[in-house]
Amino acid sequence: MKIQAMARAPASVGNVAVGFDILGHTIDGPFDEVIVRRVDTPGVRIIAIHGADRPLPRKAADNTSGAALLSLCAALNPKLGFEIEINKGIPYGSGLGGSAASAVAALVAANELLDTPLTRQQLYTYALTGEAVASGSRHGDNVAPMLLGGLVLATAETLLRLPVPDWLYAVVVHPHYVLETRRSREVLVDPYPLSRYVEQSTHLSMMLLGCFRGDPELLRNGLVDVLVEPRRAALIPGFAEIKKAALNSGSLGASISGAGPSVFAWCRGAASAAIVKTAMGQAFAERGLASEGWISPVAGPRAEVVSCAS
Amino acid sequence: MKIQAMARAPASVGNVAVGFDILGHTIDGPFDEVIVRRVDTPGVRIIAIHGADRPLPRKAADNTSGAALLSLCAALNPKLGFEIEINKGIPYGSGLGGSAASAVAALVAANELLDTPLTRQQLYTYALTGEAVASGSRHGDNVAPMLLGGLVLATAETLLRLPVPDWLYAVVVHPHYVLETRRSREVLVDPYPLSRYVEQSTHLSMMLLGCFRGDPELLRNGLVDVLVEPRRAALIPGFAEIKKAALNSGSLGASISGAGPSVFAWCRGAASAAIVKTAMGQAFAERGLASEGWISPVAGPRAEVVSCAS
Repeated sequence: MKIQAMARAPASVGNVAVGFDILGHTIDGPFDEVIVRRVDTPGVRIIAIHGADRPLPRKAADNTSGAALLSLCAALNPKLGFEIEINKGIPYGSGLGGSAASAVAALVAANELLDTPLTRQQLYTYALTGEAVASGSRHGDNVAPMLLGGLVLATAETLLRLPVPDWLYAVVVHPHYVLETRRSREVLVDPYPLSRYVEQSTHLSMMLLGCFRGDPELLRNGLVDVLVEPRRAALIPGFAEIKKAALNSGSLGASISGAGPSVFAWCRGAASAAIVKTAMGQAFAERGLASEGWISPVAGPRAEVVSCAS
Repeated sequence: MKIQAMARAPASVGNVAVGFDILGHTIDGPFDEVIVRRVDTPGVRIIAIHGADRPLPRKAADNTSGAALLSLCAALNPKLGFEIEINKGIPYGSGLGGSAASAVAALVAANELLDTPLTRQQLYTYALTGEAVASGSRHGDNVAPMLLGGLVLATAETLLRLPVPDWLYAVVVHPHYVLETRRSREVLVDPYPLSRYVEQSTHLSMMLLGCFRGDPELLRNGLVDVLVEPRRAALIPGFAEIKKAALNSGSLGASISGAGPSVFAWCRGAASAAIVKTAMGQAFAERGLASEGWISPVAGPRAEVVSCAS
């Protein structure tokens, strides 16, 4: 019987401009790793957290890894016992799905230790519960792509992987600036007129069609967020310039990754992505912000078990 | 040189539950026919309107057929002259795209008489202008499917035909009840919270994926309008019962066609559609409303020239 497993969950781009709370894709970039040990004492304990750039909750119920495993235990067998060790690789408050990644990595590792492992679809509800302790709500735009890989539509109950052209690359640039999620949410409280929804839903439809047809022009026309980005842009220093740099250097579109402050762009091919990444990094630098960036296929990796021990 | 052409444009289901103002499909059911004659006198004149169940504007600029041709002439050649005869087959104020059909049929007929005919895509902008004189705004969810046929995503500039499973049938039932479009619009004025948009966009995405994958369960989960239908339902006598009848008799989903009061349902196969049509008609009858209904593939016909003369 396996008693210990380590799993890795990749960072992700949530929302993807026009899929607020429902669309996300992973990137081959930073990741969280979680080691889970099966123990005889029932319950979930966090033994250690490494690499966190600020203190994270050590109480299992308040930590996304811990809460995910607690909900798994509650559903499967309250006598299960797990110890967790977390290696944070995704920067805190970056908009790259760090809270979600810890929850997913913990679940994928723990699942490896179960007598009857669950499917990724079955793990989804526990991942949502885990992430919700950090975000305050159940939305799958980060945990869903981490579970399945690639670009995923996350509904309340199911994960639906979308086709992605093989030439489609993402650039993600993370400025060294922490955006309080609370502020990112506050600006979304005021309601919207129906006309704004009509416009956004046209873009969402074009984006989905663009993925199905592999049509860059549909993607270009689709990747335009008229709902959330206009309200959040002011929270990210220099956002307008960074977006302009991404568009002017050849990307198909650019917007905020998750709640920000990271910014992503979609590009035709890795060579174009390299040019776009440089332009976006320079634009942040001109605003006095250091940043780091990654290039990845939009069809990024899924969370995987890295090692296990019997 | 051709001097006269008659074209037919089919009725359509606008909005299709989750594509407010942007999605529509035609049906093989009622249609409008328009005869257009090329004359030497510049301008557009409406010679006759037959079959209208209430008086329609005879002044070209106020009539959807006339306004469509006026905008075509203004763009192509102000010296063009057309006479129009309209045969209305689509009931007034039914939510089946009657205003749009007259505009599209006129354009398709006039196009046949041009020295260099335009593409359906090129006719789109004139069709939008034509329909706008009746509806007050440019939205392509009726004219776009009439121009291309089938299920169409109508953006501000382009028409995008969506794939439709060949087993997908629509039932459309039109109760003999006139709903003032003004009232249908008034109820949409109050703004919506972002959460409602998120829910609707999940449904829209599932519906589009269901079409691409030919997956009835995705269509079932997708065909749920949480945005417009809840506000308009009260304007259609017995809507809740009619919808319930459609769902209980085996349809995948049902909602309001356009601004109503017609109600449509999507079904797996023609045999299922026949059962659903009967159930919906009975439900209207129980509310004391006579109705008529049609069954059609969702991949319905496009507007076509029926005859022409030199």
